[in-house]
Amino acid sequence: MPNLAVDVIDIIDPADDRVDDFRDLNSVDRRPDLPALPGGRPGKGLVIAEGVLVAQRMIASRFAPHAFLGVDKRLGELADDLTHPALAGVPFYRATAEVMADVVGFHLNRGVLAVARRPSTLDIASVIEDARTVAVLEGVNDHENIGSIFRNAAGLGVDAVVFGAGCADPLYRRCVRVSMGHALLVPFASAEAWPADLETLRSNGFRIVSLTPDPGSVALADAVDAERVAFMVGAEGPGLTETAMRAGDVRARIPMSRGTDSLNVATAAAIAFYERARREAPIS
Amino acid sequence: MPNLAVDVIDIIDPADDRVDDFRDLNSVDRRPDLPALPGGRPGKGLVIAEGVLVAQRMIASRFAPHAFLGVDKRLGELADDLTHPALAGVPFYRATAEVMADVVGFHLNRGVLAVARRPSTLDIASVIEDARTVAVLEGVNDHENIGSIFRNAAGLGVDAVVFGAGCADPLYRRCVRVSMGHALLVPFASAEAWPADLETLRSNGFRIVSLTPDPGSVALADAVDAERVAFMVGAEGPGLTETAMRAGDVRARIPMSRGTDSLNVATAAAIAFYERARREAPIS
Repeated sequence: MPNLAVDVIDIIDPADDRVDDFRDLNSVDRRPDLPALPGGRPGKGLVIAEGVLVAQRMIASRFAPHAFLGVDKRLGELADDLTHPALAGVPFYRATAEVMADVVGFHLNRGVLAVARRPSTLDIASVIEDARTVAVLEGVNDHENIGSIFRNAAGLGVDAVVFGAGCADPLYRRCVRVSMGHALLVPFASAEAWPADLETLRSNGFRIVSLTPDPGSVALADAVDAERVAFMVGAEGPGLTETAMRAGDVRARIPMSRGTDSLNVATAAAIAFYERARREAPIS
Repeated sequence: MPNLAVDVIDIIDPADDRVDDFRDLNSVDRRPDLPALPGGRPGKGLVIAEGVLVAQRMIASRFAPHAFLGVDKRLGELADDLTHPALAGVPFYRATAEVMADVVGFHLNRGVLAVARRPSTLDIASVIEDARTVAVLEGVNDHENIGSIFRNAAGLGVDAVVFGAGCADPLYRRCVRVSMGHALLVPFASAEAWPADLETLRSNGFRIVSLTPDPGSVALADAVDAERVAFMVGAEGPGLTETAMRAGDVRARIPMSRGTDSLNVATAAAIAFYERARREAPIS
Protein backbone atom coordinates (compact mmCIF):
# COMPACT_ATOMS: atom_id res chain seq x y z
CA MET A 1 0.00 0.00 0.00
CA PRO A 2 1.41 3.44 -0.93
CA ASN A 3 1.89 6.15 1.69
CA LEU A 4 -1.64 7.36 2.34
CA ALA A 5 -2.41 11.00 3.02
CA VAL A 6 -5.67 10.08 4.73
CA ASP A 7 -5.94 8.83 8.31
CA VAL A 8 -7.46 5.35 8.40
CA ILE A 9 -9.80 5.02 11.37
CA ASP A 10 -11.68 1.81 12.12
CA ILE A 11 -15.35 2.15 12.95
CA ILE A 12 -16.76 -0.70 15.02
CA ASP A 13 -19.97 0.87 16.32
CA PRO A 14 -22.51 1.96 13.68
CA ALA A 15 -23.76 4.61 16.12
CA ASP A 16 -20.34 6.32 16.19
CA ASP A 17 -21.06 10.00 15.61
CA ARG A 18 -17.93 10.46 13.52
CA VAL A 19 -19.77 8.86 10.58
CA ASP A 20 -22.91 10.98 10.93
CA ASP A 21 -22.35 12.57 7.53
CA PHE A 22 -22.99 9.16 5.96
CA ARG A 23 -25.98 8.25 8.09
CA ASP A 24 -29.45 7.30 6.80
CA LEU A 25 -28.80 8.24 3.21
CA ASN A 26 -32.31 7.29 2.16
CA SER A 27 -34.09 8.97 5.04
CA VAL A 28 -36.43 11.59 3.65
CA ASP A 29 -36.18 13.68 6.77
CA ARG A 30 -32.49 13.71 7.35
CA ARG A 31 -30.73 12.91 4.12
CA PRO A 32 -27.40 14.65 4.16
CA ASP A 33 -27.27 15.38 0.42
CA LEU A 34 -29.95 18.04 0.26
CA PRO A 35 -28.99 21.69 0.23
CA ALA A 36 -29.14 23.42 3.59
CA LEU A 37 -31.64 26.16 2.87
CA PRO A 38 -33.02 28.79 5.20
CA GLY A 39 -36.44 27.97 6.61
CA GLY A 40 -35.80 24.62 8.21
CA ARG A 41 -35.13 22.42 5.20
CA PRO A 42 -33.48 19.36 6.69
CA GLY A 43 -30.51 18.87 4.33
CA LYS A 44 -26.95 19.18 5.54
CA GLY A 45 -25.73 20.60 2.25
CA LEU A 46 -23.32 17.76 1.61
CA VAL A 47 -22.33 16.08 -1.63
CA ILE A 48 -21.88 12.32 -1.62
CA ALA A 49 -19.83 10.25 -4.04
CA GLU A 50 -20.53 6.51 -4.24
CA GLY A 51 -18.07 3.93 -5.47
CA VAL A 52 -14.41 3.96 -6.40
CA LEU A 53 -14.76 5.72 -9.76
CA VAL A 54 -16.98 8.54 -8.49
CA ALA A 55 -14.84 8.98 -5.37
CA GLN A 56 -11.78 9.30 -7.63
CA ARG A 57 -13.55 11.96 -9.64
CA MET A 58 -14.54 13.81 -6.47
CA ILE A 59 -10.89 13.84 -5.38
CA ALA A 60 -9.98 15.32 -8.78
CA SER A 61 -12.75 17.93 -8.60
CA ARG A 62 -13.26 21.20 -6.76
CA PHE A 63 -15.47 19.26 -4.29
CA ALA A 64 -12.88 18.51 -1.61
CA PRO A 65 -13.89 15.39 0.35
CA HIS A 66 -13.64 15.83 4.11
CA ALA A 67 -14.26 12.16 4.95
CA PHE A 68 -14.55 8.69 3.45
CA LEU A 69 -16.44 5.61 4.65
CA GLY A 70 -15.61 2.29 3.08
CA VAL A 71 -14.66 -1.35 3.37
CA ASP A 72 -11.03 -2.40 3.40
CA LYS A 73 -11.15 -3.73 -0.18
CA ARG A 74 -12.19 -0.34 -1.55
CA LEU A 75 -9.55 1.40 0.56
CA GLY A 76 -7.05 -0.75 -1.30
CA GLU A 77 -8.54 0.10 -4.68
CA LEU A 78 -8.45 3.83 -3.88
CA ALA A 79 -5.01 3.77 -2.28
CA ASP A 80 -3.18 5.60 -5.06
CA ASP A 81 -5.76 8.37 -5.07
CA LEU A 82 -5.61 8.65 -1.29
CA THR A 83 -1.98 9.74 -1.40
CA HIS A 84 -3.02 13.16 -2.76
CA PRO A 85 -1.51 15.86 -0.47
CA ALA A 86 -4.83 17.72 -0.39
CA LEU A 87 -6.22 14.77 1.56
CA ALA A 88 -3.69 15.07 4.40
CA GLY A 89 -5.43 14.34 7.67
CA VAL A 90 -8.80 13.55 6.07
CA PRO A 91 -10.33 10.54 7.84
CA PHE A 92 -11.00 7.32 5.95
CA TYR A 93 -13.47 5.51 8.17
CA ARG A 94 -12.94 1.83 7.56
CA ALA A 95 -15.80 -0.53 8.44
CA THR A 96 -17.17 -3.93 7.61
CA ALA A 97 -19.94 -4.13 5.01
CA GLU A 98 -22.37 -4.85 7.87
CA VAL A 99 -21.41 -1.80 9.94
CA MET A 100 -21.48 0.33 6.79
CA ALA A 101 -24.99 -0.90 5.94
CA ASP A 102 -26.14 -0.03 9.46
CA VAL A 103 -24.78 3.48 9.08
CA VAL A 104 -26.10 4.31 5.62
CA GLY A 105 -29.37 2.43 6.05
CA PHE A 106 -29.00 -0.09 3.23
CA HIS A 107 -26.41 -2.39 1.73
CA LEU A 108 -24.24 -0.33 -0.57
CA ASN A 109 -22.46 -2.71 -2.87
CA ARG A 110 -20.21 0.01 -4.24
CA GLY A 111 -18.47 -0.28 -0.87
CA VAL A 112 -17.15 3.23 -0.45
CA LEU A 113 -18.48 6.76 0.00
CA ALA A 114 -16.80 10.14 -0.01
CA VAL A 115 -18.44 13.28 1.34
CA ALA A 116 -17.74 16.94 0.64
CA ARG A 117 -19.32 20.20 1.66
CA ARG A 118 -20.86 22.19 -1.14
CA PRO A 119 -18.37 24.75 -2.37
CA SER A 120 -19.54 28.22 -3.33
CA THR A 121 -21.60 28.28 -6.48
CA LEU A 122 -20.14 29.45 -9.76
CA ASP A 123 -21.67 32.15 -11.91
CA ILE A 124 -22.61 31.83 -15.55
CA ALA A 125 -19.91 34.20 -16.80
CA SER A 126 -17.17 32.15 -15.18
CA VAL A 127 -18.34 28.69 -16.31
CA ILE A 128 -18.69 29.77 -19.93
CA GLU A 129 -15.46 31.76 -20.04
CA ASP A 130 -13.37 29.19 -21.90
CA ALA A 131 -16.28 27.12 -23.22
CA ARG A 132 -17.05 26.47 -26.86
CA THR A 133 -20.13 24.32 -26.29
CA VAL A 134 -22.53 24.49 -23.36
CA ALA A 135 -25.81 22.87 -22.40
CA VAL A 136 -28.66 24.95 -21.00
CA LEU A 137 -31.48 23.18 -19.16
CA GLU A 138 -34.99 24.44 -18.42
CA GLY A 139 -37.52 22.53 -16.32
CA VAL A 140 -35.45 19.35 -16.19
CA ASN A 141 -36.51 18.11 -12.77
CA ASP A 142 -35.54 14.45 -13.00
CA HIS A 143 -32.27 13.61 -11.25
CA GLU A 144 -31.54 10.69 -13.52
CA ASN A 145 -31.90 12.84 -16.64
CA ILE A 146 -29.66 15.53 -15.19
CA GLY A 147 -27.05 12.92 -14.27
CA SER A 148 -27.19 11.45 -17.78
CA ILE A 149 -26.81 14.91 -19.31
CA PHE A 150 -23.63 15.49 -17.29
CA ARG A 151 -22.29 12.09 -18.35
CA ASN A 152 -23.08 12.78 -22.01
CA ALA A 153 -21.66 16.31 -21.75
CA ALA A 154 -18.36 15.01 -20.40
CA GLY A 155 -18.15 12.25 -23.00
CA LEU A 156 -19.02 14.42 -25.97
CA GLY A 157 -16.95 17.50 -25.29
CA VAL A 158 -19.48 19.89 -23.74
CA ASP A 159 -17.68 22.36 -21.51
CA ALA A 160 -20.32 23.64 -19.08
CA VAL A 161 -23.95 23.30 -18.01
CA VAL A 162 -26.28 26.21 -17.22
CA PHE A 163 -29.47 25.62 -15.25
CA GLY A 164 -32.51 27.71 -16.03
CA ALA A 165 -35.80 27.72 -14.14
CA GLY A 166 -37.38 24.57 -12.75
CA CYS A 167 -34.43 22.19 -12.68
CA ALA A 168 -33.61 19.67 -9.97
CA ASP A 169 -30.47 19.81 -7.85
CA PRO A 170 -27.47 18.41 -9.77
CA LEU A 171 -25.67 17.55 -6.53
CA TYR A 172 -28.33 15.15 -5.30
CA ARG A 173 -26.73 11.75 -4.65
CA ARG A 174 -28.59 9.91 -7.41
CA CYS A 175 -27.65 12.56 -9.94
CA VAL A 176 -23.97 12.41 -9.03
CA ARG A 177 -24.07 8.60 -9.30
CA VAL A 178 -25.82 8.50 -12.69
CA SER A 179 -23.43 11.17 -13.99
CA MET A 180 -20.53 8.81 -13.11
CA GLY A 181 -19.15 11.73 -11.10
CA HIS A 182 -19.10 14.15 -14.01
CA ALA A 183 -21.59 16.41 -12.20
CA LEU A 184 -18.57 17.21 -10.00
CA LEU A 185 -16.22 17.85 -12.92
CA VAL A 186 -18.21 19.63 -15.61
CA PRO A 187 -18.65 23.20 -14.33
CA PHE A 188 -22.21 24.39 -13.90
CA ALA A 189 -24.07 27.52 -12.86
CA SER A 190 -27.68 28.46 -12.25
CA ALA A 191 -29.48 31.40 -13.78
CA GLU A 192 -30.73 33.94 -11.29
CA ALA A 193 -33.08 35.63 -13.75
CA TRP A 194 -34.68 33.37 -16.32
CA PRO A 195 -34.56 33.56 -19.25
CA ALA A 196 -32.95 37.02 -18.97
CA ASP A 197 -29.59 35.51 -18.00
CA LEU A 198 -29.34 33.93 -21.46
CA GLU A 199 -28.11 37.40 -22.41
CA THR A 200 -24.81 36.50 -20.71
CA LEU A 201 -24.40 33.72 -23.25
CA ARG A 202 -25.36 35.86 -26.21
CA SER A 203 -23.14 38.76 -25.26
CA ASN A 204 -20.27 36.27 -25.08
CA GLY A 205 -20.89 35.21 -28.65
CA PHE A 206 -22.85 32.03 -28.09
CA ARG A 207 -25.49 31.00 -30.58
CA ILE A 208 -28.37 29.69 -28.45
CA VAL A 209 -29.96 26.68 -30.17
CA SER A 210 -33.33 25.53 -28.76
CA LEU A 211 -34.08 21.84 -29.30
CA THR A 212 -37.71 21.33 -30.25
CA PRO A 213 -39.75 18.73 -32.14
CA ASP A 214 -41.37 21.58 -34.11
CA PRO A 215 -41.22 20.49 -37.78
CA GLY A 216 -40.98 24.15 -38.79
CA SER A 217 -37.59 24.49 -37.13
CA VAL A 218 -34.26 23.96 -38.90
CA ALA A 219 -32.49 20.62 -38.93
CA LEU A 220 -30.04 20.25 -36.05
CA ALA A 221 -27.15 19.73 -38.48
CA ASP A 222 -27.81 23.17 -39.96
CA ALA A 223 -27.74 24.98 -36.61
CA VAL A 224 -24.44 24.11 -34.98
CA ASP A 225 -21.70 25.68 -37.08
CA ALA A 226 -21.10 28.75 -34.93
CA GLU A 227 -17.85 29.25 -33.04
CA ARG A 228 -19.69 29.04 -29.72
CA VAL A 229 -22.93 27.11 -29.32
CA ALA A 230 -25.35 26.71 -26.39
CA PHE A 231 -27.85 23.86 -26.70
CA MET A 232 -31.03 24.54 -24.75
CA VAL A 233 -33.25 21.59 -23.79
CA GLY A 234 -36.49 21.35 -21.83
CA ALA A 235 -38.24 18.67 -19.84
CA GLU A 236 -39.63 15.60 -21.56
CA GLY A 237 -43.26 16.22 -22.34
CA PRO A 238 -43.67 19.98 -22.12
CA GLY A 239 -40.31 20.78 -23.68
CA LEU A 240 -38.93 24.31 -23.60
CA THR A 241 -41.24 27.18 -22.79
CA GLU A 242 -42.05 29.58 -25.60
CA THR A 243 -40.53 32.34 -23.48
CA ALA A 244 -37.20 30.55 -23.31
CA MET A 245 -37.19 29.73 -27.03
CA ARG A 246 -37.89 33.37 -27.87
CA ALA A 247 -34.86 34.32 -25.83
CA GLY A 248 -32.77 31.91 -27.93
CA ASP A 249 -31.41 32.44 -31.44
CA VAL A 250 -32.58 29.45 -33.47
CA ARG A 251 -34.93 26.49 -33.06
CA ALA A 252 -33.59 23.15 -34.23
CA ARG A 253 -35.08 19.69 -34.51
CA ILE A 254 -33.81 16.14 -34.55
CA PRO A 255 -35.44 14.33 -37.50
CA MET A 256 -38.08 12.05 -35.98
CA SER A 257 -40.43 9.43 -37.39
CA ARG A 258 -44.09 10.25 -37.58
CA GLY A 259 -46.29 8.92 -34.79
CA THR A 260 -43.52 8.57 -32.25
CA ASP A 261 -42.86 10.43 -29.05
CA SER A 262 -40.11 12.92 -28.53
CA LEU A 263 -36.84 11.42 -27.34
CA ASN A 264 -35.79 11.32 -23.73
CA VAL A 265 -34.23 14.71 -22.88
CA ALA A 266 -30.78 13.29 -22.11
CA THR A 267 -30.84 11.31 -25.36
CA ALA A 268 -31.85 14.38 -27.38
CA ALA A 269 -29.09 16.37 -25.68
CA ALA A 270 -26.55 13.62 -26.46
CA ILE A 271 -27.49 13.76 -30.14
CA ALA A 272 -27.03 17.53 -30.19
CA PHE A 273 -23.67 17.20 -28.42
CA TYR A 274 -22.64 14.55 -30.95
CA GLU A 275 -23.67 16.73 -33.90
CA ARG A 276 -21.31 19.36 -32.54
CA ALA A 277 -18.50 16.96 -31.57
CA ARG A 278 -18.32 15.24 -34.93
CA ARG A 279 -17.36 18.52 -36.62
CA GLU A 280 -14.66 19.46 -34.17
CA ALA A 281 -11.06 18.43 -34.49
CA PRO A 282 -10.86 14.86 -33.19
CA ILE A 283 -11.24 15.01 -29.44
CA SER A 284 -10.19 11.45 -28.71
CA MET B 1 -69.05 7.06 -25.26
CA PRO B 2 -68.67 5.41 -28.72
CA ASN B 3 -69.91 1.90 -29.40
CA LEU B 4 -67.35 -0.29 -27.70
CA ALA B 5 -66.25 -3.62 -29.17
CA VAL B 6 -65.05 -4.82 -25.77
CA ASP B 7 -67.36 -6.20 -23.08
CA VAL B 8 -67.15 -4.07 -19.94
CA ILE B 9 -67.30 -6.28 -16.85
CA ASP B 10 -67.16 -4.84 -13.34
CA ILE B 11 -64.82 -6.54 -10.91
CA ILE B 12 -65.74 -6.08 -7.27
CA ASP B 13 -63.73 -8.87 -5.65
CA PRO B 14 -59.95 -8.69 -6.08
CA ALA B 15 -59.82 -12.50 -5.78
CA ASP B 16 -61.98 -12.92 -8.90
CA ASP B 17 -60.15 -15.45 -11.03
CA ARG B 18 -61.09 -13.70 -14.26
CA VAL B 19 -58.33 -11.16 -13.58
CA ASP B 20 -55.65 -13.73 -12.82
CA ASP B 21 -53.59 -12.65 -15.83
CA PHE B 22 -53.03 -9.31 -14.08
CA ARG B 23 -52.32 -10.74 -10.62
CA ASP B 24 -49.17 -10.11 -8.58
CA LEU B 25 -47.23 -8.38 -11.33
CA ASN B 26 -44.22 -7.91 -9.09
CA SER B 27 -44.19 -11.39 -7.61
CA VAL B 28 -40.91 -13.04 -8.52
CA ASP B 29 -42.47 -16.50 -8.41
CA ARG B 30 -45.59 -15.96 -10.42
CA ARG B 31 -45.16 -12.92 -12.58
CA PRO B 32 -47.21 -13.36 -15.69
CA ASP B 33 -44.90 -11.52 -18.07
CA LEU B 34 -42.08 -14.05 -18.17
CA PRO B 35 -41.83 -16.49 -21.05
CA ALA B 36 -43.33 -19.92 -20.39
CA LEU B 37 -40.27 -22.07 -20.90
CA PRO B 38 -39.91 -25.81 -20.58
CA GLY B 39 -38.37 -26.92 -17.31
CA GLY B 40 -40.71 -25.33 -14.83
CA ARG B 41 -40.00 -21.62 -15.33
CA PRO B 42 -42.98 -19.94 -13.72
CA GLY B 43 -43.93 -17.36 -16.35
CA LYS B 44 -47.26 -17.47 -18.13
CA GLY B 45 -45.82 -16.17 -21.37
CA LEU B 46 -47.94 -13.04 -21.39
CA VAL B 47 -47.15 -9.54 -22.53
CA ILE B 48 -48.43 -6.66 -20.46
CA ALA B 49 -49.03 -3.10 -21.58
CA GLU B 50 -49.34 -0.38 -18.92
CA GLY B 51 -51.11 2.92 -19.40
CA VAL B 52 -53.28 4.42 -22.10
CA LEU B 53 -50.52 5.12 -24.64
CA VAL B 54 -48.90 1.68 -24.43
CA ALA B 55 -52.30 -0.05 -24.48
CA GLN B 56 -53.13 1.90 -27.65
CA ARG B 57 -49.90 0.74 -29.21
CA MET B 58 -50.61 -2.85 -28.22
CA ILE B 59 -54.02 -2.62 -29.92
CA ALA B 60 -52.26 -1.35 -33.06
CA SER B 61 -49.62 -4.10 -32.92
CA ARG B 62 -49.51 -7.80 -33.75
CA PHE B 63 -49.87 -8.47 -30.00
CA ALA B 64 -53.63 -8.92 -29.77
CA PRO B 65 -54.86 -8.10 -26.26
CA HIS B 66 -57.23 -10.71 -24.85
CA ALA B 67 -58.19 -8.68 -21.76
CA PHE B 68 -57.95 -5.26 -20.14
CA LEU B 69 -58.05 -4.21 -16.49
CA GLY B 70 -58.57 -0.57 -15.69
CA VAL B 71 -60.38 2.17 -13.86
CA ASP B 72 -63.38 3.87 -15.40
CA LYS B 73 -61.47 7.04 -16.24
CA ARG B 74 -58.99 5.11 -18.40
CA LEU B 75 -61.83 3.20 -20.05
CA GLY B 76 -63.12 6.58 -21.15
CA GLU B 77 -59.72 7.69 -22.42
CA LEU B 78 -59.32 4.46 -24.42
CA ALA B 79 -62.90 4.39 -25.69
CA ASP B 80 -62.12 5.23 -29.32
CA ASP B 81 -59.47 2.52 -29.47
CA LEU B 82 -61.81 0.00 -27.87
CA THR B 83 -64.21 0.21 -30.81
CA HIS B 84 -61.73 -1.74 -32.99
CA PRO B 85 -63.56 -4.78 -34.48
CA ALA B 86 -60.66 -7.07 -33.57
CA LEU B 87 -61.53 -6.45 -29.92
CA ALA B 88 -65.07 -7.80 -30.25
CA GLY B 89 -65.93 -9.74 -27.13
CA VAL B 90 -62.63 -9.02 -25.39
CA PRO B 91 -63.32 -8.28 -21.71
CA PHE B 92 -62.49 -4.89 -20.23
CA TYR B 93 -62.46 -5.57 -16.50
CA ARG B 94 -63.42 -2.34 -14.82
CA ALA B 95 -62.42 -1.87 -11.19
CA THR B 96 -61.75 0.82 -8.64
CA ALA B 97 -58.14 1.88 -8.09
CA GLU B 98 -58.23 0.01 -4.77
CA VAL B 99 -59.42 -3.28 -6.25
CA MET B 100 -56.92 -2.92 -9.07
CA ALA B 101 -54.09 -2.37 -6.58
CA ASP B 102 -55.14 -5.50 -4.70
CA VAL B 103 -55.03 -7.52 -7.92
CA VAL B 104 -51.72 -6.31 -9.34
CA GLY B 105 -50.02 -6.01 -5.96
CA PHE B 106 -49.22 -2.32 -6.00
CA HIS B 107 -50.83 1.00 -6.86
CA LEU B 108 -50.54 1.46 -10.60
CA ASN B 109 -51.08 5.11 -11.32
CA ARG B 110 -51.24 4.51 -15.05
CA GLY B 111 -54.68 3.07 -14.28
CA VAL B 112 -55.02 0.54 -17.08
CA LEU B 113 -53.40 -2.68 -18.24
CA ALA B 114 -53.80 -4.75 -21.38
CA VAL B 115 -52.59 -8.33 -21.69
CA ALA B 116 -51.75 -10.42 -24.74
CA ARG B 117 -50.35 -13.88 -25.31
CA ARG B 118 -46.97 -13.99 -27.01
CA PRO B 119 -47.44 -14.48 -30.73
CA SER B 120 -45.10 -16.74 -32.66
CA THR B 121 -41.60 -15.34 -32.98
CA LEU B 122 -40.40 -13.77 -36.21
CA ASP B 123 -37.24 -14.82 -37.99
CA ILE B 124 -34.40 -12.54 -39.00
CA ALA B 125 -35.06 -12.82 -42.73
CA SER B 126 -38.64 -11.63 -42.33
CA VAL B 127 -37.95 -8.68 -40.01
CA ILE B 128 -35.20 -7.29 -42.24
CA GLU B 129 -37.04 -7.87 -45.51
CA ASP B 130 -38.13 -4.27 -46.09
CA ALA B 131 -35.68 -2.68 -43.67
CA ARG B 132 -33.06 -0.10 -44.55
CA THR B 133 -31.64 0.33 -41.07
CA VAL B 134 -31.58 -2.25 -38.28
CA ALA B 135 -30.13 -2.48 -34.79
CA VAL B 136 -28.31 -5.62 -33.66
CA LEU B 137 -27.76 -6.17 -29.93
CA GLU B 138 -25.27 -8.45 -28.22
CA GLY B 139 -25.14 -9.02 -24.46
CA VAL B 140 -27.59 -6.22 -23.68
CA ASN B 141 -29.19 -7.71 -20.60
CA ASP B 142 -30.72 -4.64 -19.01
CA HIS B 143 -34.45 -4.27 -19.63
CA GLU B 144 -34.37 -0.51 -19.37
CA ASN B 145 -31.64 -0.23 -22.00
CA ILE B 146 -33.51 -2.55 -24.36
CA GLY B 147 -36.69 -0.54 -23.86
CA SER B 148 -34.82 2.70 -24.57
CA ILE B 149 -33.29 1.21 -27.71
CA PHE B 150 -36.77 0.33 -29.02
CA ARG B 151 -37.99 3.84 -28.23
CA ASN B 152 -35.00 5.41 -29.97
CA ALA B 153 -35.31 3.01 -32.92
CA ALA B 154 -38.94 3.97 -33.46
CA GLY B 155 -38.23 7.69 -33.14
CA LEU B 156 -35.19 7.72 -35.41
CA GLY B 157 -36.38 5.54 -38.26
CA VAL B 158 -34.81 2.16 -37.46
CA ASP B 159 -36.91 -0.59 -39.01
CA ALA B 160 -36.06 -3.72 -37.00
CA VAL B 161 -34.08 -5.07 -34.05
CA VAL B 162 -32.07 -8.30 -34.06
CA PHE B 163 -31.04 -9.91 -30.77
CA GLY B 164 -27.74 -11.75 -30.62
CA ALA B 165 -26.43 -13.77 -27.70
CA GLY B 166 -26.89 -12.72 -24.09
CA CYS B 167 -29.76 -10.25 -24.37
CA ALA B 168 -32.67 -9.89 -21.97
CA ASP B 169 -36.30 -10.49 -22.94
CA PRO B 170 -37.73 -7.51 -24.84
CA LEU B 171 -41.28 -8.42 -23.80
CA TYR B 172 -40.66 -8.10 -20.09
CA ARG B 173 -43.09 -5.58 -18.63
CA ARG B 174 -40.49 -2.98 -17.69
CA CYS B 175 -38.98 -3.12 -21.16
CA VAL B 176 -42.34 -2.64 -22.87
CA ARG B 177 -43.06 0.31 -20.57
CA VAL B 178 -39.70 2.06 -21.08
CA SER B 179 -40.04 1.52 -24.84
CA MET B 180 -43.34 3.45 -24.70
CA GLY B 181 -44.87 0.39 -26.38
CA HIS B 182 -42.51 0.44 -29.35
CA ALA B 183 -41.17 -3.01 -28.37
CA LEU B 184 -44.57 -4.19 -29.62
CA LEU B 185 -44.39 -2.24 -32.89
CA VAL B 186 -40.79 -2.39 -34.10
CA PRO B 187 -40.34 -5.95 -35.44
CA PHE B 188 -37.60 -7.99 -33.78
CA ALA B 189 -36.05 -11.43 -34.10
CA SER B 190 -33.47 -13.43 -32.18
CA ALA B 191 -30.43 -15.10 -33.67
CA GLU B 192 -30.36 -18.85 -33.27
CA ALA B 193 -26.68 -19.16 -34.11
CA TRP B 194 -24.49 -16.29 -32.95
CA PRO B 195 -22.73 -14.59 -34.60
CA ALA B 196 -23.22 -16.89 -37.61
CA ASP B 197 -26.72 -15.52 -38.23
CA LEU B 198 -25.19 -12.14 -39.09
CA GLU B 199 -24.66 -13.77 -42.47
CA THR B 200 -28.40 -13.35 -43.10
CA LEU B 201 -27.88 -9.60 -42.84
CA ARG B 202 -24.81 -9.56 -45.03
CA SER B 203 -26.31 -11.73 -47.74
CA ASN B 204 -29.20 -9.27 -47.86
CA GLY B 205 -26.84 -6.42 -48.56
CA PHE B 206 -26.52 -4.92 -45.09
CA ARG B 207 -23.29 -3.30 -44.04
CA ILE B 208 -22.76 -4.39 -40.44
CA VAL B 209 -21.31 -1.50 -38.42
CA SER B 210 -19.92 -2.39 -34.96
CA LEU B 211 -19.98 0.48 -32.47
CA THR B 212 -16.80 0.51 -30.40
CA PRO B 213 -14.79 3.10 -28.45
CA ASP B 214 -11.63 1.81 -30.21
CA PRO B 215 -9.79 4.96 -31.41
CA GLY B 216 -8.41 2.95 -34.33
CA SER B 217 -11.87 2.52 -35.81
CA VAL B 218 -13.44 4.84 -38.38
CA ALA B 219 -15.60 7.80 -37.39
CA LEU B 220 -19.28 6.89 -37.25
CA ALA B 221 -20.12 9.52 -39.87
CA ASP B 222 -17.84 7.74 -42.35
CA ALA B 223 -19.46 4.33 -41.89
CA VAL B 224 -23.15 4.78 -42.55
CA ASP B 225 -23.53 5.66 -46.23
CA ALA B 226 -24.51 2.19 -47.46
CA GLU B 227 -27.98 1.48 -48.84
CA ARG B 228 -28.66 -0.91 -45.96
CA VAL B 229 -26.97 -0.57 -42.56
CA ALA B 230 -27.05 -2.71 -39.42
CA PHE B 231 -25.71 -1.06 -36.26
CA MET B 232 -24.34 -3.58 -33.78
CA VAL B 233 -24.03 -2.57 -30.12
CA GLY B 234 -22.84 -4.44 -27.04
CA ALA B 235 -23.44 -4.16 -23.33
CA GLU B 236 -22.13 -1.18 -21.42
CA GLY B 237 -18.77 -2.05 -19.95
CA PRO B 238 -17.62 -5.08 -21.93
CA GLY B 239 -18.99 -3.84 -25.27
CA LEU B 240 -19.17 -6.15 -28.26
CA THR B 241 -17.20 -9.37 -28.25
CA GLU B 242 -14.25 -9.59 -30.62
CA THR B 243 -15.98 -12.56 -32.25
CA ALA B 244 -19.04 -10.49 -33.07
CA MET B 245 -17.00 -7.56 -34.39
CA ARG B 246 -15.02 -9.90 -36.65
CA ALA B 247 -18.30 -11.10 -38.09
CA GLY B 248 -19.21 -7.48 -38.89
CA ASP B 249 -17.97 -5.33 -41.75
CA VAL B 250 -16.60 -2.17 -40.17
CA ARG B 251 -15.85 -0.84 -36.69
CA ALA B 252 -17.00 2.70 -36.00
CA ARG B 253 -16.60 5.05 -33.07
CA ILE B 254 -18.43 8.01 -31.65
CA PRO B 255 -15.87 10.76 -30.96
CA MET B 256 -15.40 10.82 -27.19
CA SER B 257 -13.46 13.04 -24.82
CA ARG B 258 -10.39 11.63 -23.15
CA GLY B 259 -10.79 10.32 -19.64
CA THR B 260 -14.51 9.69 -19.88
CA ASP B 261 -16.45 6.45 -19.88
CA SER B 262 -18.21 5.01 -22.87
CA LEU B 263 -21.76 6.23 -23.32
CA ASN B 264 -24.79 4.32 -22.15
CA VAL B 265 -25.59 1.69 -24.79
CA ALA B 266 -29.02 3.13 -25.63
CA THR B 267 -27.49 6.60 -25.96
CA ALA B 268 -24.73 5.33 -28.24
CA ALA B 269 -27.32 3.50 -30.35
CA ALA B 270 -29.44 6.67 -30.57
CA ILE B 271 -26.47 8.63 -31.86
CA ALA B 272 -25.82 6.00 -34.53
CA PHE B 273 -29.52 6.00 -35.50
CA TYR B 274 -29.40 9.79 -35.73
CA GLU B 275 -26.28 9.77 -37.90
CA ARG B 276 -28.22 7.58 -40.30
CA ALA B 277 -31.53 9.47 -40.05
CA ARG B 278 -30.06 12.88 -40.73
CA ARG B 279 -28.89 11.77 -44.19
CA GLU B 280 -32.19 10.26 -45.23
CA ALA B 281 -34.96 12.17 -46.94
CA PRO B 282 -36.81 14.07 -44.20
CA ILE B 283 -38.80 11.52 -42.23
CA SER B 284 -40.94 13.94 -40.26
